[in-house]
Amino acid sequence: MTELEQLIKENRYIRDVLDGPSAIWNSLDFWEQTGQISVIAEKLNSFHYSKVLLTGMGSSLNALYPLYCRLLQHGIQVCHIETSELLNYSNELITEDCLTVIVSQSGESIEIQKLLDNNGLKGLTIGITNTYQSTLYTKSNCSLLTQAGNETSVSCKTYLAALAATTILGDILLKEDSAMTIDALRSAAQEIEKYYVNSKGHIHKLIDLLSETKYLVVTGRGMSIASANTAALVIKESSKFFAEGMSSAAFRHGPFEIILSGLFLVVFSGDRRVYELNKKLVDDVNLCGGKAVLVERGKECDPFIVPEVSDSILPIVEILPAQMLSIALSVLHKHEPGRFDLISKVTLTE
Amino acid sequence: MTELEQLIKENRYIRDVLDGPSAIWNSLDFWEQTGQISVIAEKLNSFHYSKVLLTGMGSSLNALYPLYCRLLQHGIQVCHIETSELLNYSNELITEDCLTVIVSQSGESIEIQKLLDNNGLKGLTIGITNTYQSTLYTKSNCSLLTQAGNETSVSCKTYLAALAATTILGDILLKEDSAMTIDALRSAAQEIEKYYVNSKGHIHKLIDLLSETKYLVVTGRGMSIASANTAALVIKESSKFFAEGMSSAAFRHGPFEIILSGLFLVVFSGDRRVYELNKKLVDDVNLCGGKAVLVERGKECDPFIVPEVSDSILPIVEILPAQMLSIALSVLHKHEPGRFDLISKVTLTE
Repeated sequence: MTELEQLIKENRYIRDVLDGPSAIWNSLDFWEQTGQISVIAEKLNSFHYSKVLLTGMGSSLNALYPLYCRLLQHGIQVCHIETSELLNYSNELITEDCLTVIVSQSGESIEIQKLLDNNGLKGLTIGITNTYQSTLYTKSNCSLLTQAGNETSVSCKTYLAALAATTILGDILLKEDSAMTIDALRSAAQEIEKYYVNSKGHIHKLIDLLSETKYLVVTGRGMSIASANTAALVIKESSKFFAEGMSSAAFRHGPFEIILSGLFLVVFSGDRRVYELNKKLVDDVNLCGGKAVLVERGKECDPFIVPEVSDSILPIVEILPAQMLSIALSVLHKHEPGRFDLISKVTLTE
Repeated sequence: MTELEQLIKENRYIRDVLDGPSAIWNSLDFWEQTGQISVIAEKLNSFHYSKVLLTGMGSSLNALYPLYCRLLQHGIQVCHIETSELLNYSNELITEDCLTVIVSQSGESIEIQKLLDNNGLKGLTIGITNTYQSTLYTKSNCSLLTQAGNETSVSCKTYLAALAATTILGDILLKEDSAMTIDALRSAAQEIEKYYVNSKGHIHKLIDLLSETKYLVVTGRGMSIASANTAALVIKESSKFFAEGMSSAAFRHGPFEIILSGLFLVVFSGDRRVYELNKKLVDDVNLCGGKAVLVERGKECDPFIVPEVSDSILPIVEILPAQMLSIALSVLHKHEPGRFDLISKVTLTE
């Protein structure tokens, strides 16, 4: 067995990554068995709200970004705000006619606790969490409980499950049929499993590709900005490597200048509307002597080719290359992937 | 004359930086002479809006962030959104009852042009720009024209002038007296001039401090998130050095793990409410063996001590250490400060 094969077999973070498809399947099964989706739909039917607040911290906040984009596109008054910032403004923002959606994998981050403890949330609160009986679970008006199982350190399988939950919540809020989404999520999980079968090859390719890289930027547009920000966060946490997420348009407005200083740019191609703009960014960076790759949907076996899913659940598969990058960069810089040296899984300091 | 003295005298970016106080004074004088503030106040008095959109790209978008925080705190429906993203959603978001505030120093960024050309903006549009007769100036319903003069490359003096403009616009929107803000801005400009007198010493100190730094993170809370994001952008553009901005709370949720990998953390202490939280972050990073400094208000001569201004205009002075950092990092890595190698001043590709 090679060193990489052994790592893939034994490293706890990589095992959590590879558990992603099960996290989605188990959550979908659980929601069907317990009827949680219908409970939320009923609660929402009898509650008239004039605005929606979407809040969380880190990758939990990012998991709400695709929902934010979708609600915006439907002309709904919606605010996507870090819970820490919301704490400063909660008295003005959280009103009786407010629907607050809170995502926290642990359900115990210090900001979530403070928000739920101190302010006595008004309106209706929906919690999305991976932890039964957590503060978020017990203090929300209703919950969508994900079933990703225990996660060792960096958010990976819980992020996929949270994205599945926020997508279905979007269907409920917009009164669209969630059956199609559930089917699409089930097949996406299958495709994700196929992508992971080639993990060893993906990681090898990335190790070769990144040997001279000093800094990674990940960009996208629309919903894919969630993927860009989570990708950068996961890479920083798992491999202690410098990575930043931003919108592709923001990259044009200044950061483009840095492409010759050891930068590697990863661009999510996104939906049809923005595909050409994103592709042109990759081409322009490469033409100027920088290094950039496009993450696209397709069937080819390549770390940057993700499964062919519909636009609405694209963020679920976009995160795969970021996971592979986090492992490759760890191996390259001789760090045990996903090992936390300084922080704990649950953030307890504000 | 030492090499650094010569650079300070001759470099065009540094000259633009040092012109910051004049940019504020000239803009204030111009607004008073032309009565632009009263014109906007009158327009707003006769227009009933139910929501506010704040939009721009890069540091122009950041210059709207303090106004976003202030309007949020007053319970006003407000959305802070990149113009590129707004383009995708404009049909749903920009309605007849919408007040749209657009900031663009050139008034000609491709996204601004597209937004104004293609969509025939509904409701009322206020443009804040440094360029007379630009697309933004001519196509808005009314404008606040800043008088920062020509800027060579990286946004510095135009950013200060834009912040002055958005602060005054906040007074108008909230029907507060802008006379006090104008006085506060005038004295802040004086204090900024005093800070710049010590530029050489500040830059020297920073060069020593940063010799082993590989990566910079700048954080803050509330309004200071504008400063964190602009600081990182300015450093990337001016010195081709890797820098990232985020909220201090977001830094706790994962990125903290990276502090032993050559990171230097700069934390804006912010207003009284968040001061202790920000100070504790700096202390915790230093206790764990990382390197962090706090940007505070005070009288001491130090690159990280900014003038004692009121909370409401704090972002105006917070950007000073970032400017000094951008020059120090350029000198340290033998790059001409603020020289653009790849992009142009005005972003014309989306």
